[in-house]
Amino acid sequence: MPAIRHALTTRRADDFAAWFQEVVGAADMAEESGVRGCMVIKPWGFGIWERMQRLLDARIKEAGVDNAYFPLFIPLANFNREAEHVEGFAKEMAVVTHHRLIADGKGGLIPDPDAKLEEPLIVRPTSETIIGDAMARWVQSWRDLPLKLNQWANVVRWEMRTRMFLRTSEFLWQEGHTAHETAVDARAETMRGLEMYRSFAIEQCALPVIAGEKPENERFPGAVETWSIEGMMQDGKALQAGTSHYLGTSFAHASGIRFQDREGAQQLAHTVSWGMSTRMVGALIMTHGDDDGLRVPPQLAPWQVVILPMLRGDEGDEALLEYCALLKSAAAREWAWDEKLRVLLDSRPGKAAAKRWDWVRRGAPIIIEVGPRDMEGGSVSLLRRDRLWNEAGKPDFAAPSREEATSSLPALLEEIQASLLAEATARRDAAIVRDITSTDQLAAYFAEDQRYPGWAEVQWSRPTGAALDAIVEQLKVLKLTFRNVPLDAAPADGTCLFTGEPAVERILVARAY
Amino acid sequence: MPAIRHALTTRRADDFAAWFQEVVGAADMAEESGVRGCMVIKPWGFGIWERMQRLLDARIKEAGVDNAYFPLFIPLANFNREAEHVEGFAKEMAVVTHHRLIADGKGGLIPDPDAKLEEPLIVRPTSETIIGDAMARWVQSWRDLPLKLNQWANVVRWEMRTRMFLRTSEFLWQEGHTAHETAVDARAETMRGLEMYRSFAIEQCALPVIAGEKPENERFPGAVETWSIEGMMQDGKALQAGTSHYLGTSFAHASGIRFQDREGAQQLAHTVSWGMSTRMVGALIMTHGDDDGLRVPPQLAPWQVVILPMLRGDEGDEALLEYCALLKSAAAREWAWDEKLRVLLDSRPGKAAAKRWDWVRRGAPIIIEVGPRDMEGGSVSLLRRDRLWNEAGKPDFAAPSREEATSSLPALLEEIQASLLAEATARRDAAIVRDITSTDQLAAYFAEDQRYPGWAEVQWSRPTGAALDAIVEQLKVLKLTFRNVPLDAAPADGTCLFTGEPAVERILVARAY
Repeated sequence: MPAIRHALTTRRADDFAAWFQEVVGAADMAEESGVRGCMVIKPWGFGIWERMQRLLDARIKEAGVDNAYFPLFIPLANFNREAEHVEGFAKEMAVVTHHRLIADGKGGLIPDPDAKLEEPLIVRPTSETIIGDAMARWVQSWRDLPLKLNQWANVVRWEMRTRMFLRTSEFLWQEGHTAHETAVDARAETMRGLEMYRSFAIEQCALPVIAGEKPENERFPGAVETWSIEGMMQDGKALQAGTSHYLGTSFAHASGIRFQDREGAQQLAHTVSWGMSTRMVGALIMTHGDDDGLRVPPQLAPWQVVILPMLRGDEGDEALLEYCALLKSAAAREWAWDEKLRVLLDSRPGKAAAKRWDWVRRGAPIIIEVGPRDMEGGSVSLLRRDRLWNEAGKPDFAAPSREEATSSLPALLEEIQASLLAEATARRDAAIVRDITSTDQLAAYFAEDQRYPGWAEVQWSRPTGAALDAIVEQLKVLKLTFRNVPLDAAPADGTCLFTGEPAVERILVARAY
Repeated sequence: MPAIRHALTTRRADDFAAWFQEVVGAADMAEESGVRGCMVIKPWGFGIWERMQRLLDARIKEAGVDNAYFPLFIPLANFNREAEHVEGFAKEMAVVTHHRLIADGKGGLIPDPDAKLEEPLIVRPTSETIIGDAMARWVQSWRDLPLKLNQWANVVRWEMRTRMFLRTSEFLWQEGHTAHETAVDARAETMRGLEMYRSFAIEQCALPVIAGEKPENERFPGAVETWSIEGMMQDGKALQAGTSHYLGTSFAHASGIRFQDREGAQQLAHTVSWGMSTRMVGALIMTHGDDDGLRVPPQLAPWQVVILPMLRGDEGDEALLEYCALLKSAAAREWAWDEKLRVLLDSRPGKAAAKRWDWVRRGAPIIIEVGPRDMEGGSVSLLRRDRLWNEAGKPDFAAPSREEATSSLPALLEEIQASLLAEATARRDAAIVRDITSTDQLAAYFAEDQRYPGWAEVQWSRPTGAALDAIVEQLKVLKLTFRNVPLDAAPADGTCLFTGEPAVERILVARAY
């Protein structure tokens, strides 16, 4: 096969981290903002996040969960009250101490010493406690339950080392918080949240995630059960892309969420939380990107079809633009996934080839170029982003008539969506080993020279406490972590890799983001 | 007419401010959060804001503006750089000085003295400067223009006296920022933003706003022109519900937004900004609320139709619920304004009458009650929220068959939307006086004993500078402000009320929020 001149300078196989950074920039996803740890999410990156929001939000509403909005600032006292949470995640936080700036007399500005807050405010790292406060006010009787709330918001966790979309000081997410009468109801909601994320990731983001329960050491602090979806990136590492927690009554106890039950007695509510963030965009890049940039699954693409007229700056341009405008309006009347197609006619000034490669790097699913010759023949030049190159190492253009192109778009988009999922699923399945039966084998499998080793699904006896901690330390030396116990794993039939006891289930072990 | 037992305890006519607070609570719009100046936006209130967002966002996208996301934190240096803006609005701001909390050794938490930021960060009061920084990076050539960005975000301006939805320390808004090659293009975008707000307010929020230009003293600091839409509240006060600013090249100068023009010379871009916030929800309440709570225009209602089965806790409930479920699914297949109807079957436990009044206070446009008798007769009891009471002072239920009710819903919703707009427009038109020709008349018109006087549209000579300042001071004594010079006002044909010179245009004078 002839050498292909790829659109990026870095190959995934050569330096995955550098490749990721290059895609983030080359696909116009995000850039450094100049504010420590905070990124600017550029229109194409934000458009993908907006699509994720819209599709997930429809599922959230469908489940009878209400969106609401809670304050950005959390009183310090809320963290005192929940000191155990502070141990868990909330030490590095942005602290607001003053409410005014004044001139320092030397041409600059300083926080006004006379405007010091009596009690500092914390920029929310999560809204757990402030939503808990509201629930305690809103819940009086069993009739008020279930109470199912969700918030789309920005949150801040001060991070020393940041990577765009994966770990930033400010990020965007949704946090669902629900309260229930019984443990049974709360567990059902926990699983509904998990399944919502699983099907959203697979069906709409084309991310073949694995849903399962986290082991004890990976639980959210205070949770009874933590469930996650885990995606495999192209470097074989795992990325946790969503979590759902059953919190028992401990959060209700801390926040005072009590209700009169059907017998008239006072009870603590059972609470649940579930969340997904802009990390999902990072997962998308590392799953569907290739050496030419990003490939956006059609359901998430802000523009599914981009039409590029090959303008020449002469009198022929007008007819060409008219031809393209007709194509655009016809294409935009087609439907896929119960929505009208999102079609852009990109008639900005600039060379057609440069614009084509811009859209290739961004990963628009279908690029249609129209030059004077196409127009004369009543046809178009159509490029599928998921199958960019032909056997000659050239962009693999098809040349359907304008009418054929238009009517084929919905089926093509569905095919691209399915093909991205199939490709990622096949890669994942090929990279999970299930026959490792000793820690030596595990160490050998993840040895340094095998750079993108994937995951191991191993049998274990579900140890807890100190026994588990010792195993976690042992894995840490290999830079490995437990991911989850897949819901659909085969039953255990052997011995625990770590304890030698009879195994009770299978768990995924991997390097992770 | 017999006395009506209204759903609220406060009448608009008695105490408008107390009435507003009561509606905010009784309609489940928002509540105090316990965090100074910050509110919790409850599901019904947030659902209305989400509808506003969705409808306005479609207009923003339609105009070719791209959404993006910029950091919550702004470096202090950005405010130094734009010292004139600090004078304008940015003194009272939330200042982040530390990035870590530690235990104080006495069981509490304090900002870690070792984690003091080298330079404080400001929680964004607006994103003007940080978006300006990005534009300076992204714009090189005239080919990069126009650059049209919008952000939906939370912003913070420390407020000493707060009122829910009208003035809160944290609020939600969208801010559009655009950069253009020429003043002509930038002015066109300024007017497009204004018209977008005007038609959104009138057509979708049923708010009969008046679009016009702000006088010099009300301009955004640094702007060449500021335009606004102004709504009249039921107490006759004005509320500015959206603004669009032509900023000339001063912001481009401050941020360094330069481009190579078509002749190869370096030029400063012409910039524009436009914004709308959760104040709009306050305007909605004060325009459409009545003594029974809120009335939500159907296009903005999270639920347009609420079905209430009159459950009795006996064996008849099952058939009743089935009857209502059929009604719901039939109603949800109807369309209005190119969207499927939003229909809720509220089968929560609780007394039907209590639930009815909950939905009356919240202002769901159509409430359909179904009791065993309705079911037997194949009918329903239908209540229009905009015309709640009959002549006997009782809720004015209609009794269509289930099929009639279903098929009539789209037309009914359109009628309610139109009727709310017509009512507010008639009230506004009756409360604008246009025949005031002296400041004495003006003072008399707005005298204390006339509590809800409305607005005066007066002729003036458009004075500037010190002459204008003197007039503004004179109005201040009467607690009056200039609102705007309506685009569609009649031409001037008299003398200026203030200067005695020949008038050049007409301007609105009013008390304002």
